[in-house]
Amino acid sequence: MVWLYFDGISWMRRSKKRNVILMISDGFGPASETMARNFWQQTHKLPVGFQSPLDEILVGSSRTRSSSSLVTDSAAGATAFSCGHKSYNGAIGVMDSESPCGTVLEAAKLQRKMLTGLVATSRITHATPAAFSSHVLHRDMEDLIAEYQIGNYSLGSVVDLMFGGGRCHFLPQSAGNDSCRMDNRDLWSEAKQAGFRVLKDRKAFDQLETTKEVLPVLGSFALSHMDYDIDRKPEEQPSLADMSDKALRILKSATKDSDSGFFLMIEGSRIDMAAHTNDPAAHVRDIIAYWDAIAVVRKFVDENPDTVMVSVSDHETGGFSVAKQLTAEYPEYLWNPHALEPVKHSIEYIAPQILALGTKDSDKYAFVRDTVFPKWMGISDATHDEISAVAKETESVRLRQLLSDAESTRAQLGWSTHGHSAVDVNLYAYGRDAHLLAGNHENTDIGNFIVEMLGLDLQAVTALVHSDRRGVGVECGGDMPNLDTKDNQNTANPQSVDFLEGLKSKH
Amino acid sequence: MVWLYFDGISWMRRSKKRNVILMISDGFGPASETMARNFWQQTHKLPVGFQSPLDEILVGSSRTRSSSSLVTDSAAGATAFSCGHKSYNGAIGVMDSESPCGTVLEAAKLQRKMLTGLVATSRITHATPAAFSSHVLHRDMEDLIAEYQIGNYSLGSVVDLMFGGGRCHFLPQSAGNDSCRMDNRDLWSEAKQAGFRVLKDRKAFDQLETTKEVLPVLGSFALSHMDYDIDRKPEEQPSLADMSDKALRILKSATKDSDSGFFLMIEGSRIDMAAHTNDPAAHVRDIIAYWDAIAVVRKFVDENPDTVMVSVSDHETGGFSVAKQLTAEYPEYLWNPHALEPVKHSIEYIAPQILALGTKDSDKYAFVRDTVFPKWMGISDATHDEISAVAKETESVRLRQLLSDAESTRAQLGWSTHGHSAVDVNLYAYGRDAHLLAGNHENTDIGNFIVEMLGLDLQAVTALVHSDRRGVGVECGGDMPNLDTKDNQNTANPQSVDFLEGLKSKH
Repeated sequence: MVWLYFDGISWMRRSKKRNVILMISDGFGPASETMARNFWQQTHKLPVGFQSPLDEILVGSSRTRSSSSLVTDSAAGATAFSCGHKSYNGAIGVMDSESPCGTVLEAAKLQRKMLTGLVATSRITHATPAAFSSHVLHRDMEDLIAEYQIGNYSLGSVVDLMFGGGRCHFLPQSAGNDSCRMDNRDLWSEAKQAGFRVLKDRKAFDQLETTKEVLPVLGSFALSHMDYDIDRKPEEQPSLADMSDKALRILKSATKDSDSGFFLMIEGSRIDMAAHTNDPAAHVRDIIAYWDAIAVVRKFVDENPDTVMVSVSDHETGGFSVAKQLTAEYPEYLWNPHALEPVKHSIEYIAPQILALGTKDSDKYAFVRDTVFPKWMGISDATHDEISAVAKETESVRLRQLLSDAESTRAQLGWSTHGHSAVDVNLYAYGRDAHLLAGNHENTDIGNFIVEMLGLDLQAVTALVHSDRRGVGVECGGDMPNLDTKDNQNTANPQSVDFLEGLKSKH
Repeated sequence: MVWLYFDGISWMRRSKKRNVILMISDGFGPASETMARNFWQQTHKLPVGFQSPLDEILVGSSRTRSSSSLVTDSAAGATAFSCGHKSYNGAIGVMDSESPCGTVLEAAKLQRKMLTGLVATSRITHATPAAFSSHVLHRDMEDLIAEYQIGNYSLGSVVDLMFGGGRCHFLPQSAGNDSCRMDNRDLWSEAKQAGFRVLKDRKAFDQLETTKEVLPVLGSFALSHMDYDIDRKPEEQPSLADMSDKALRILKSATKDSDSGFFLMIEGSRIDMAAHTNDPAAHVRDIIAYWDAIAVVRKFVDENPDTVMVSVSDHETGGFSVAKQLTAEYPEYLWNPHALEPVKHSIEYIAPQILALGTKDSDKYAFVRDTVFPKWMGISDATHDEISAVAKETESVRLRQLLSDAESTRAQLGWSTHGHSAVDVNLYAYGRDAHLLAGNHENTDIGNFIVEMLGLDLQAVTALVHSDRRGVGVECGGDMPNLDTKDNQNTANPQSVDFLEGLKSKH
């Protein structure tokens, strides 16, 4: 119903050059934006009316539920954006029926001859980028997702540019610890043979020219996820803004003489992961890194008026709130941004170093007292009980919780879960036709907006993906991660496997 | 800066008849709207795309901080709306300097000859309605606020219609327990003498005609706050929608032959209070009662195109999130709206009845087991430990917490505080010029929007209020509630008291 007003104009749009940049802030709810704004405003002594680069372009909100739950996961959330359909939690580019659904990225490539890109700070095979570039039954099938991403399916190579982490899913088991594949397939070499320029470090990234000739390109700057921005060494890994800027320069240059523009998805992936850990300092720093990327993209939109940028989250993470009651007494109305300012590292960085220190209690106590609390977390008033509990804890989840409590209590920030929540997320848009996204929308409306902007026919793409029966994870076994994908290599004649029937019987 | 684009047109607007309806959902954050929508959609088996009457008119969000804290209270929040200025937590129609600020209600009355109204489910003397109709240093000075509201200050009677609770602050101490005044002043009689029609029950409300002749009117349907909607007996108290509907009919009728329209503030006051108790069932029912009022007002706007309605919250309450992790295991992604459906009463209703039951443990245990959990809270699986803990608890705050935990855990809803949080709140608008509120705003922008819509000059009103030096709470003593206001009766010659100087020395 909401989209009726596009009908008359979508045909007109199909004939025009157009760039669409979809920015996804994974696990970033409304409380996180307020918290980050308060933090930045207070720690930089800015006036009360300060707005972030996102605040200035707020247009509405997105309802996030999936087909299987009021609380979505990132896979179903990204599939709503990529296919314009609600699906079940875990679904990557597949419908509720478990059959594939054509994505806006695929359709932009095939129907509009646009260039396409995926930028993320997670593994590029992680749920969000995966949902635009693959069709598998469960998000954990990342070995298979990597195969899709280098063109190993019926549509061939549809992603022209990938920047992010996740190299381990492209490396064969023979690469030892660098590999996280369950087979010995060397997708890194396969990608090169297929014409991809491959990059694996900051130096190669910096040297990459911003011309058409570098495409297709696969830049993978970490074996697994890229570092949280708070831990990131700029000489080793580019920032999200760095990757966004380079992606835009390349795609602009490469479409300069074309009648078609580009579709680029940029994800601030780890905003979510910090919230899963209930780590407020890593969370806020990744949000600010996302703001930096937003600023880069907004500048591009200003300079390229045929471009629209949409920024949205798939869901909120952490049940996060900008208040925490510390005692049974009626609480004061405040929170303390300055507690986050001196924090130097994420809890994910700190916890393993405590655990690795061995078992000698006095050494650990001194390390926690002299380094962890004062130097890494900026906490100068840690009590003996706090230090002792952290030093003695040998279980990773409980240790992270202790560190989270120490930070969150001092900042007076609350969390109700290590999972996701149902709250609507903010919707931001900028550039041509951005006003059409005003108001409160179902998350699928974001996908359908892109469809209308580019005049795409996703059903036609769906039909093409359907014809590849190997595509939808033959070996699906439910929730298990990293299933053995060897069988996939033997499905040269996919028609011989009636996989849909087989899958139905497994579920 | 945001308001620059109004400048050219505000003068034009001053000459036109215009109605402004400001709806305030106290303590209603973004998570609360999602929760209520999920609840209504699930318990009424509505399609996934269901939108509440608010969802359909979302235009942006409001930043809520006060001048004294990142986390505002309702007084500073309402003063931002009424005066267009940030002030300190506790401030009622006064600036940070503690001097009065003219309000949009006062200016509408004095400068545009508009009719004015206040509708609330709290005491009408409570922070939100108070900030439009009085000027006191602290929200707890409700005895004095009541005096303002019946015209006992320099501007005289500026509120034409009041519907809500709070009769106790109008009744003299001689009325016994019906009074909560610290003096023996009978404002109820004074109001009548000043020309107010006074009403104190549902029957009188129903019989009230919707004509100009009933104005000014003071309807006070409870001694303190009106009941939560979940506890409300319709034969005893009108709903917020009932009061809104009648207020609109009266104000429309009374301005029919006038060149001026009306300003009406309608508050869903107790959404906030349920969140303070962390009571999800009372919270959701008061939100739905607010939706009902929104639907009434939207219909009015449809039928009266010179009207604009704005709906906004002053702040979020409870650090509420639509997720709660129940165990140390990684949480499932879900919440359970159906747990709230069978709840019959608020925790505020239930807790005193348990406490009043005396000390015989076996009786209390049976009452909690047989009535409280199954019949009032819809909980059929209460454990012996839960029943026993509730039956044994003799301290009110802890008892309420136990009841809150029982409900919130079954619904899987999280709270991080019994106070407020800093999260931005949703901004809704409907009717003429509503689109001008699109985007993310400082809460003061709401007040300034009304100023511009009506072409008001608040500084001119401020000057008039300033001249009444009795106005700003001579007897202010900081945080103490219900201060003795006897002294006020002796300030017939306010110029004789240099109260501003006196106040400075006290603060």
